[in-house]
Amino acid sequence: MKMSQGVEWAIHCCALLASLPAEVTMRLEKIAEFYDLPLPYLRKQFQALSRAGIVTTTTGPQGGYRLAKTAAETNLLQIYIAIEGDDPCFKCNEIRQQGPTAAFQKDYARPCGIARIMWNAERAWRRELEKATLAELVSDAAKEIDPAKQAASAKWIAACLAER
Amino acid sequence: MKMSQGVEWAIHCCALLASLPAEVTMRLEKIAEFYDLPLPYLRKQFQALSRAGIVTTTTGPQGGYRLAKTAAETNLLQIYIAIEGDDPCFKCNEIRQQGPTAAFQKDYARPCGIARIMWNAERAWRRELEKATLAELVSDAAKEIDPAKQAASAKWIAACLAER
Repeated sequence: MKMSQGVEWAIHCCALLASLPAEVTMRLEKIAEFYDLPLPYLRKQFQALSRAGIVTTTTGPQGGYRLAKTAAETNLLQIYIAIEGDDPCFKCNEIRQQGPTAAFQKDYARPCGIARIMWNAERAWRRELEKATLAELVSDAAKEIDPAKQAASAKWIAACLAER
Repeated sequence: MKMSQGVEWAIHCCALLASLPAEVTMRLEKIAEFYDLPLPYLRKQFQALSRAGIVTTTTGPQGGYRLAKTAAETNLLQIYIAIEGDDPCFKCNEIRQQGPTAAFQKDYARPCGIARIMWNAERAWRRELEKATLAELVSDAAKEIDPAKQAASAKWIAACLAER
């Protein structure tokens, strides 16, 4: 089972937006440049993030993307769902209802025990992503990323914002 | 993110084997018939289960598949890994090391904070599947499946074992 690379991109890019001052937007071209990501593919991820209410866009010379909510209100589960959708990873095909000894439909009112275990495990996974907010991610990163790299990023971001 | 249907099949079929008396084997054709599954695809799943040491096969007229270990020693994580592989769902592509402000490689000794959160969530998911043994699954099913369906299954299995 593989998560699409778009989730990784989307989380990194949202973390970049979370590090900007409030109300400040960044053009998608610049977000793509910051991580050296291909713009057409990243645009698709941002359309999905926008539909999910995670980012918002403004037009005009100062236009661009910013987080739609605060970084503390935005978590990694929301970003995952925006990109990958909200369907469970495990799809129960009710194979217990197949074969020569299958019972009547009424005897299968409760979901299959296997599906219950799989969905329970997915809930545990989702809870961990839900607990992880962008605010925490950015604050933890600030504590451990090399200060020279942080300064270089801050300088690049400031130049990119000043340019407009 | 979607789990392959083979995982569902493999868990159901292993649960069927777990319900057989110790040392008793069942032919793959009969396992496929019990759940009305396509034999060629199911054979692939059983080859994977066999390589992973979850089932074992004996040849000859009494030959067939049985669990390699006890039902209490076999859990849903082992079955998942046998079918889907042991790679994490989230692959970190180190995009933090890309772009105009990327630092030196030595500054990225610790895994990316995003990858750490994703892998931590996967560990929570894996723990739930690891806790779920086939022994428990079969015992829980016996408590809730309609007795008439259970009797029909037991009769079908007995006839299939007697046939050899």
